[in-house]
Amino acid sequence: MKLFKKVGIVGTGLIGGSIALAIRKKRLAGEVVGISRRRKSIRDAKSRGAIDRGSQDLKIIRGCDAVILATPVETIIKMAPAISKLVSRDCLVTDVGSTKVEIVKVFSKIFPNFIGSHPLAGSEKTGILQAHVDLFKNSLCILTPTEATSTAALKITKVLWQRLGAQTVLLTPKSHDRILSFVSHLPHVAAFALMGVLPKDYLRFASSGLKDMTRIARSDGELWVQIFLSNPKNLVKAIESLDAQLSQIKGALRRKDKKLLKGILERARTKRRILEENSKSQIPNSK
Amino acid sequence: MKLFKKVGIVGTGLIGGSIALAIRKKRLAGEVVGISRRRKSIRDAKSRGAIDRGSQDLKIIRGCDAVILATPVETIIKMAPAISKLVSRDCLVTDVGSTKVEIVKVFSKIFPNFIGSHPLAGSEKTGILQAHVDLFKNSLCILTPTEATSTAALKITKVLWQRLGAQTVLLTPKSHDRILSFVSHLPHVAAFALMGVLPKDYLRFASSGLKDMTRIARSDGELWVQIFLSNPKNLVKAIESLDAQLSQIKGALRRKDKKLLKGILERARTKRRILEENSKSQIPNSK
Repeated sequence: MKLFKKVGIVGTGLIGGSIALAIRKKRLAGEVVGISRRRKSIRDAKSRGAIDRGSQDLKIIRGCDAVILATPVETIIKMAPAISKLVSRDCLVTDVGSTKVEIVKVFSKIFPNFIGSHPLAGSEKTGILQAHVDLFKNSLCILTPTEATSTAALKITKVLWQRLGAQTVLLTPKSHDRILSFVSHLPHVAAFALMGVLPKDYLRFASSGLKDMTRIARSDGELWVQIFLSNPKNLVKAIESLDAQLSQIKGALRRKDKKLLKGILERARTKRRILEENSKSQIPNSK
Repeated sequence: MKLFKKVGIVGTGLIGGSIALAIRKKRLAGEVVGISRRRKSIRDAKSRGAIDRGSQDLKIIRGCDAVILATPVETIIKMAPAISKLVSRDCLVTDVGSTKVEIVKVFSKIFPNFIGSHPLAGSEKTGILQAHVDLFKNSLCILTPTEATSTAALKITKVLWQRLGAQTVLLTPKSHDRILSFVSHLPHVAAFALMGVLPKDYLRFASSGLKDMTRIARSDGELWVQIFLSNPKNLVKAIESLDAQLSQIKGALRRKDKKLLKGILERARTKRRILEENSKSQIPNSK
C-alpha cells in the first residue's frame, strides 16, 4: 500500500539512506527523491536503489506530499524557511534529529502536519554506503507530537515508521530531550572524555572492554557537537549526576570503603541486567 | 614439549579454567590439578577436560613445579603463606591478578621463582563454563618481573604464555598498575557510574551504543571492588583526569563554545582510531 505520492529525503546518509531504501523496497511511495550537499552521495544513493532521482538542489522536493529531514540538527533547523517555500502547507514533514525541543518549536509553527521523529537506530558509522533496508527493524522510534499536531499527520507518521519495522512511542519534546541526555548524549560525552584522558602510549594495552566502551567515540564529531549544543541544559545536568557518582566512588576509594563500593557496583549491575532483559523482550514484534 | 610435571591452578573460573584447558590440550604439563572453593566448579572443570584432578583443599598442589593463582586479587594475596607451606622454594609461581604492586610485593619475598602475570583477556562473563582454550590467542600478557626475579623463571613464564597464544610484554609492577588504572579500571568505574545515574524508567530508550558502552558494568562486583581497592591511588588520579575533562566539556556547553567542543571530540576520535588500528595490526602473530 502506497502511503505517499512523492517523498523527499533531505540528507541521504546512514539514516536518510536507510529510510529511502526501505520506502522503495516496501513500495510505500510512488517516487523517492534525495537531496545531498555532496554529488557522490546522490550518485551512491541512486546506484544503491535508495532514490529514484537526486539533486544537490532542494527544489527537487517540489510536489512532495512527505518530506523527511535527515541532516545534522543545525541544518534541519536552518532549512525550515526554504522547505516551506517549496511544498504545500499540507505536506507531511518529519525529521530524524537527535534532539527535539528546538526543531519542533521551529517546524510546528510553519507546518501544521509536522511531527518530530527520533528513530533509536544507527551506529557510529556514517554515509549512504552504510545504509541498509533493515536498519529500523525491531528498533524504537520516538515521536514528539504537540497539542497542535494534526491527528492525521500523527497517524500516518506512525504507520510509516511501523512499516519500516520500528515500534513507535510518543513523548513530549521536553521529555524526549531530558531522557536522551541520559541514555544517549551522556554516554557519548563519557566515551569522548574517556578517550580524551587516555595517554597515547597506553593505548596498546587496551582490552576489548575499553574498545567496546569507546566505540561510540568514533562517531562523527560535527554531528555530535550539534546534538550536544542543541540540548546543553539537560546535558550539563546529566554530566553533573555523573560527577556526583564519580565523587562518591572516589570518596569510597580514599576511605577504602568496600561496602559502599560494593553497593554502587551492585546497583549498577542490577540496572544493566534490566537493560539486557529489555533488549530481549521489549520489542519482540515491531508492528 | 612438556614445560612442567604438575601444574596447580588455584581458582578454576573463566581465566584459570581457560589456562587449564589450554595447558592440557597443548600437553604442556604431565598433570593439571585444580582448586576451587566450590565443588560444582571442580566437577565442571573435570567434565570439561580442564583438569586431571581437583579438590577444595589446597593440599592437592603438593609436588607441583608450577602454581598459577587465578582467584580474585584479595584471595591471591591471602593465600601466599599457605602455598609456601605446600610447594618447594623452586616452584614457579605466577598469578593472573588485575593489579600487580601488592601481589608482587608479597609473593616475591616468599618465592624466588615468582613472576606476576596479567593476561589482557577475559570478559564480563565468569566461571568455568565460559572458559575456552583460545581465550589468550592473539592477546597481550603483561609480565612484571622485579630485579630479584630469576632469569629462568621469567623465561619459562614467557614460554608458557606464548604457548597459550599470548604476546608477552614486560612492565614494572608500578607502571602496570598506573597504566591499567587508565585502560581498564577507569573505564569500569565509568561504566558502573553511568549505569548508576541512569533513571530506571529511561532504560527502555537505551540504544545499542549505551548497551555496548555499559557491557562491562555486568562484570562481577566483588571481583572489581577488590581490583579497585588494590589500586586506589592510581584510580583516584585517573578519575580526577576524567573529572577535569568532563568539567571542560560542561564549561564549553554552558558557553556554547562549539570550537572547544569540536576540538575535544576530534582529539578523542583520533585516539580511538589508533586503538582500532592497534587492534588490527599490533598483535598479528602471538609468538
